[in-house]
Amino acid sequence: MARFLKDRAKAKGLAPGSLVFIGKQKMDVPVIQLMQYDSENLSEEEFSSIEDVAKKIKPEGVNWINIYGIHDLEMMNNLGTQFNIPLLLLEDMLNTDQRPKYEDIEAHDAFILKMLQHEKPTDLIHAEQITIILGENYLLTLQEKRGDVFTHVRERIRKNKGRVRLNDNDYLAYALIDTIVDNYTILIENLGAKVEDLEDRIFSNQDTKIIEEIYRFKTELNYLRKTVRPVKEVIYALLKTENSYFQDKNKVFLKDLYDLVVQATDAIELYNSLVADQLNIYNTNANNRLNEVMKVLTIFASIFIPLTFIAGVYGMNFKYIPELDFKSSYPIFWGVVGVIIVGLLYFFKRKKWL
Amino acid sequence: MARFLKDRAKAKGLAPGSLVFIGKQKMDVPVIQLMQYDSENLSEEEFSSIEDVAKKIKPEGVNWINIYGIHDLEMMNNLGTQFNIPLLLLEDMLNTDQRPKYEDIEAHDAFILKMLQHEKPTDLIHAEQITIILGENYLLTLQEKRGDVFTHVRERIRKNKGRVRLNDNDYLAYALIDTIVDNYTILIENLGAKVEDLEDRIFSNQDTKIIEEIYRFKTELNYLRKTVRPVKEVIYALLKTENSYFQDKNKVFLKDLYDLVVQATDAIELYNSLVADQLNIYNTNANNRLNEVMKVLTIFASIFIPLTFIAGVYGMNFKYIPELDFKSSYPIFWGVVGVIIVGLLYFFKRKKWL
Amino acid sequence: MARFLKDRAKAKGLAPGSLVFIGKQKMDVPVIQLMQYDSENLSEEEFSSIEDVAKKIKPEGVNWINIYGIHDLEMMNNLGTQFNIPLLLLEDMLNTDQRPKYEDIEAHDAFILKMLQHEKPTDLIHAEQITIILGENYLLTLQEKRGDVFTHVRERIRKNKGRVRLNDNDYLAYALIDTIVDNYTILIENLGAKVEDLEDRIFSNQDTKIIEEIYRFKTELNYLRKTVRPVKEVIYALLKTENSYFQDKNKVFLKDLYDLVVQATDAIELYNSLVADQLNIYNTNANNRLNEVMKVLTIFASIFIPLTFIAGVYGMNFKYIPELDFKSSYPIFWGVVGVIIVGLLYFFKRKKWL
Amino acid sequence: MARFLKDRAKAKGLAPGSLVFIGKQKMDVPVIQLMQYDSENLSEEEFSSIEDVAKKIKPEGVNWINIYGIHDLEMMNNLGTQFNIPLLLLEDMLNTDQRPKYEDIEAHDAFILKMLQHEKPTDLIHAEQITIILGENYLLTLQEKRGDVFTHVRERIRKNKGRVRLNDNDYLAYALIDTIVDNYTILIENLGAKVEDLEDRIFSNQDTKIIEEIYRFKTELNYLRKTVRPVKEVIYALLKTENSYFQDKNKVFLKDLYDLVVQATDAIELYNSLVADQLNIYNTNANNRLNEVMKVLTIFASIFIPLTFIAGVYGMNFKYIPELDFKSSYPIFWGVVGVIIVGLLYFFKRKKWL
Amino acid sequence: MARFLKDRAKAKGLAPGSLVFIGKQKMDVPVIQLMQYDSENLSEEEFSSIEDVAKKIKPEGVNWINIYGIHDLEMMNNLGTQFNIPLLLLEDMLNTDQRPKYEDIEAHDAFILKMLQHEKPTDLIHAEQITIILGENYLLTLQEKRGDVFTHVRERIRKNKGRVRLNDNDYLAYALIDTIVDNYTILIENLGAKVEDLEDRIFSNQDTKIIEEIYRFKTELNYLRKTVRPVKEVIYALLKTENSYFQDKNKVFLKDLYDLVVQATDAIELYNSLVADQLNIYNTNANNRLNEVMKVLTIFASIFIPLTFIAGVYGMNFKYIPELDFKSSYPIFWGVVGVIIVGLLYFFKRKKWL
Repeated sequence: MARFLKDRAKAKGLAPGSLVFIGKQKMDVPVIQLMQYDSENLSEEEFSSIEDVAKKIKPEGVNWINIYGIHDLEMMNNLGTQFNIPLLLLEDMLNTDQRPKYEDIEAHDAFILKMLQHEKPTDLIHAEQITIILGENYLLTLQEKRGDVFTHVRERIRKNKGRVRLNDNDYLAYALIDTIVDNYTILIENLGAKVEDLEDRIFSNQDTKIIEEIYRFKTELNYLRKTVRPVKEVIYALLKTENSYFQDKNKVFLKDLYDLVVQATDAIELYNSLVADQLNIYNTNANNRLNEVMKVLTIFASIFIPLTFIAGVYGMNFKYIPELDFKSSYPIFWGVVGVIIVGLLYFFKRKKWL
Repeated sequence: MARFLKDRAKAKGLAPGSLVFIGKQKMDVPVIQLMQYDSENLSEEEFSSIEDVAKKIKPEGVNWINIYGIHDLEMMNNLGTQFNIPLLLLEDMLNTDQRPKYEDIEAHDAFILKMLQHEKPTDLIHAEQITIILGENYLLTLQEKRGDVFTHVRERIRKNKGRVRLNDNDYLAYALIDTIVDNYTILIENLGAKVEDLEDRIFSNQDTKIIEEIYRFKTELNYLRKTVRPVKEVIYALLKTENSYFQDKNKVFLKDLYDLVVQATDAIELYNSLVADQLNIYNTNANNRLNEVMKVLTIFASIFIPLTFIAGVYGMNFKYIPELDFKSSYPIFWGVVGVIIVGLLYFFKRKKWL
Repeated sequence: MARFLKDRAKAKGLAPGSLVFIGKQKMDVPVIQLMQYDSENLSEEEFSSIEDVAKKIKPEGVNWINIYGIHDLEMMNNLGTQFNIPLLLLEDMLNTDQRPKYEDIEAHDAFILKMLQHEKPTDLIHAEQITIILGENYLLTLQEKRGDVFTHVRERIRKNKGRVRLNDNDYLAYALIDTIVDNYTILIENLGAKVEDLEDRIFSNQDTKIIEEIYRFKTELNYLRKTVRPVKEVIYALLKTENSYFQDKNKVFLKDLYDLVVQATDAIELYNSLVADQLNIYNTNANNRLNEVMKVLTIFASIFIPLTFIAGVYGMNFKYIPELDFKSSYPIFWGVVGVIIVGLLYFFKRKKWL
Repeated sequence: MARFLKDRAKAKGLAPGSLVFIGKQKMDVPVIQLMQYDSENLSEEEFSSIEDVAKKIKPEGVNWINIYGIHDLEMMNNLGTQFNIPLLLLEDMLNTDQRPKYEDIEAHDAFILKMLQHEKPTDLIHAEQITIILGENYLLTLQEKRGDVFTHVRERIRKNKGRVRLNDNDYLAYALIDTIVDNYTILIENLGAKVEDLEDRIFSNQDTKIIEEIYRFKTELNYLRKTVRPVKEVIYALLKTENSYFQDKNKVFLKDLYDLVVQATDAIELYNSLVADQLNIYNTNANNRLNEVMKVLTIFASIFIPLTFIAGVYGMNFKYIPELDFKSSYPIFWGVVGVIIVGLLYFFKRKKWL
Repeated sequence: MARFLKDRAKAKGLAPGSLVFIGKQKMDVPVIQLMQYDSENLSEEEFSSIEDVAKKIKPEGVNWINIYGIHDLEMMNNLGTQFNIPLLLLEDMLNTDQRPKYEDIEAHDAFILKMLQHEKPTDLIHAEQITIILGENYLLTLQEKRGDVFTHVRERIRKNKGRVRLNDNDYLAYALIDTIVDNYTILIENLGAKVEDLEDRIFSNQDTKIIEEIYRFKTELNYLRKTVRPVKEVIYALLKTENSYFQDKNKVFLKDLYDLVVQATDAIELYNSLVADQLNIYNTNANNRLNEVMKVLTIFASIFIPLTFIAGVYGMNFKYIPELDFKSSYPIFWGVVGVIIVGLLYFFKRKKWL
């Protein structure tokens, strides 16, 4: 089953900018949540239509609109109209296989990012696409699946912990992106720990299961790289732009975030080369074991095959084999056997096979 | 058969700029189609000479001239004269092995691109060269083979779907390029799905057919990379130029297109490293299987070859072998055999070969 | 056990900028040391609170505050308040898995670096994080573990050797970083010497222990690269910035330091490719040895298995085997055996197996 | 024999700028040819001294001086004096192992390039160095061996085909370089076709000759890369310079030439990775075949070695072997043999070796 | 023994800029030589102290001071004082493991470079460090070992050959560096010729010595790369700087030198990939030979092991084996043997093992 690419063929032949949801529907009915707060007040509400929520937006304080269930094309169309979001961006949001990107288009800072999590039952890492749109006095977040990535941020808002209640929409956007990226590093760390654990098994064991794990880790690292690397470009582009809604006082947070993404990509490359090394070493070990197996076979066969031939000779039923009648033939036979064995053992010893 | 390079030797010794068709003729007679439209009107006509179609071009609205059968050098010469297309560009158009490129020369934006499709009967990906020339009030598209790449766009024009009827020549050029690039991603996706499907077979099976498939996928990915990577430069150059006929309001579409090409090249690299990993893992598995085979051989041979020797000893016809007359020799023989078997099994157990 | 990444999961869900110590506590109680000197005077004192030491800072001369035991979050909070250090930087200092970096934020030059040393009992290289903060008239150094990296510098200050007493805070910062980087090159050199020593063993021996060492060296080089490479960026950024407290007259030292880091990273890459070559050569040697083993087996088996068959034939008990009664059968048998042996030996000789 | 580097040791210890011919002399006596033309007139002459030819140069039209036999140091010295060519450039021209380069020195555009051709009897690609010097009103071409690279251009001049007679010296220089580069692409194409032809043999055959061919192709591609890659820099430098004699109207040809070189280097890399893939696949196939061989051996040996042991047991001459006297022993023996064979075949079947 | 890194640990704990000689002392007493010349006059003298030689420097003409035996720290200190050379540079000069570099510090152009030569008795390439300091009216060259690298240049000065007597200090500096770099290319060429010679042995022979040579060549190429690559940066930095003492008229020589270094590094990479290819091919050949060995074994064993079993059956001493009494048993036995042999040979033929 294709994990790396989604069913893009669906969109074939459509005009650019035509809305089509590429991905797997995970909600029956979309959910629209509005969270409004400033340093003193906080209110939370749920809506079923974009128009309703749009009316509620206040010019002051933070207006965070969170939407689950982006497969609903009508709602998305409304969203475009109400929030003045260009069609192309809507199209990108709906293609859940979109490469992570940042765009400052028509009075919006738009981020398309991936939220990573382990998926049941395979336990493979899986990406869920999240769009974050920062407008002049609101912040929009959109994804298909109801997830828990924002739970921690919401708690901090509700309990008024950290700096989030003291700041504006842009800080909230930063806090969300930071949560997403932070999650990357935790996943990489978990994977990395498993990779480092392989180390011992490569030397002590010879189980072949290890190969499946190495392959899986390589695939997971590929998947992580595909997801995380573009985020570096995203944050870099954001840091360089001068049109974004991010206030200068918050740029220091973005710089810190950038360092975190760099660290994450560095770690991915590090583990990648670690796994590659492990595979190499595993192969070398396998070769060494094959060498050992073949040495045992060669030593056994090279000693006993000639001896069996000699025994065979004197098992022949020729009428005239003079040795058969000698009294000392049998002890001499054993003597010859002994000499051959000792000679070959010495030969193998000199070859360092023993 | 050379799939990667065409018969360039044909052009050897010709002056630069001499017209010669390098490739395979696929049409008997060229076809010249004119499609004229604006937001309200639409007309379609076929012509047999360039002069005729040139006269019909209107200063207003979109004039799309589509030509199949570029092998007709006389027609191409006429084209150069009528539309003021420099000889060098004509030469490039006729060399169907031309690297994809963009040029803004003498009042034209010219694109040479590749349309990819699976070719019968090998099912290999095959490139068909397409030239798109954007002039002040017309758009020229040229290819050798009558294909269906533009069908979807034509339908959208006829049924007035999407934005294409509301826009000018430059938007049409964008829509065509977008169709071509979109097609790349679908091909990559198909190939990628096959690559991901290999995964299971690598572990469960030991069929050697898999190697042929891996090699084929590697070759296809090389072919795709050769075709797609230059398109990145093409779109980038287009985005950077200030002389193109592309209106600023349409630059956002080009930016989106650029992202799509980046995603396509990323995917090619991803699948490339996936296939390389699979080949590595396949080899490691093959080594492991060889190890197992050799262990079985070694265990069987190392146990039974010495035993056969002992049996051979007592099959000898020496007159004086005292053991032959002992009553208990035969049971003792089996005892020794048992001890040897158990001893060797223990030895192999300790070596973890069992 | 994960050596490459620390337990970052601890910080999950915390607001960015929340203080949490990620790493292993190595001190019971923090130690705060103040060293004050100029070209003529020198005093050293220990404190238990940040407030106390902050009061003692003189506007003239060098004020070097060294802190061991950064796990004490209260102390770190005080530090932030007293020295006006932003929360984000404090957070980075406390994450002992932070990528080395340089920042010139709010009237500080801040460096997060790694001190490398061999750790008991594994003898593996281990990184201890050091933060160096250069303020207008003080220098702060912070780490968790009481180490000896600064001993040499302290001795030079006490004994008034070298240039350190004649210079300001910025020179002291340089001297400390130089000590750290110098230590890298010594570690790399030690590792490199071991790598070069492998050379002979790869050819003369066939011990399999060598594989474990090669793997270990690869891992150590990965670890070194992860630590040293970012330092290049650190020094480069420092050289390019115009806001740092480093005086222009001291820039020449930074330039020299940069060259040293470049040399260190070059050496890491060099040893990396050396180890990779050694592994390749080891594998090739192992293959050659397998070839030799198999040749011995093949020669023995191919000669004696047919001979044993012939002997077996005349050991058969058929009533009517005419050869059994011929007088010359036995010598003819040996003649045939001789011909077969010589023939096969010639065959193997011609194949160059002998 | 060294094909990649020429005997540079000859020049050891000489002052920079001392003239010495590094390479193989291929002409007895130098040949100096002058071709003069404009759009209407054409004359061709041969000379034996540089002085004579220098006098004949006309200020108008194209003066093309072509020299074979650059080993003649006296002539080269004269050339330097008459055409004001700096010593260093003369030195470079005489070193036939010079890396391709472009220089605009002292009123000359100088190109040192390589003409590639298959050499008898090895059929290996071989480079012949060509120097092209474009002065204000003349064009100099120099090489050691009388070759046919310019034949096509000369024919076009004589027959007044193409644009060459209508243009100046700079166009002639372009036409010559274009001919050289065009020749690269043909060589690459030929090599590429052979590489692609290997494909089938890798799977269907097991001939070991294929390895020699793969190695030869890799070496040829290295040789091509060494020759072609610097030409990219040459043309790029020429495009960027503002001092060259190339007229702006001809820059479009240079741009086209640049695209051609890029395509050539792309193709070299493509074939390089194709050959590397083929070698990998070949190795994998060889491993698979070894696996198959070993399975056959293991199956035969594992079945018949135990059986031979049993037969050996009942061939023993012990006096008291009760089974020997049982009437049903022989059929039972065959029964046991049958059971063992079936059992092992089932065992191997389950292991998927059959 | 560590060849790649020198005993840097010696300098541990020293203040930056402390003088310590890192390397192997090769002279008992330092030698200080002064060569003074202009286009007409030439004088040579030897001194034992820096002060003496400093007094002799004339404001006109070239003053070349050459020093052997830099281990003498007192002399080096004097040198620093007399010629105003900063401590850091002295420190770098004394560290014979310094990475090649160029610095224009305090009225000097300083170059630290490596002179390469084959060392007895191992014949390995070995680097000797050379420092070249170009001041306003003098040129200093320093190395530890009395070598012959400058012999050719000195001869040219004495015999007034080439341009060197007509030019200033900067041209002399260029001539020396050119000599050093020229020497690189000769060494690379020699090594390259040996690498190319391996080619035939890889196919015709199966000697295992070849592996040791391949490893040695790889190591030598690593060593060369480490030495030569930084020189590219050195010359590039020199070309870009505007503060150097190099006169503009001599820049053309530097440009030529740069091309030479590029050619040298290109050649190193070329040979590196050639050696890597050779190792790959060698391994593939070894695998093919193993395949062949195993086929021989398998064919012999698979044919004769079953036959031996059959012979064994009729060697059994069971009382009731009906076949034993048939008259035609023996010829039938041979018939069966013939059928089995022919059958198996056909089987192996069909598998293409014969």
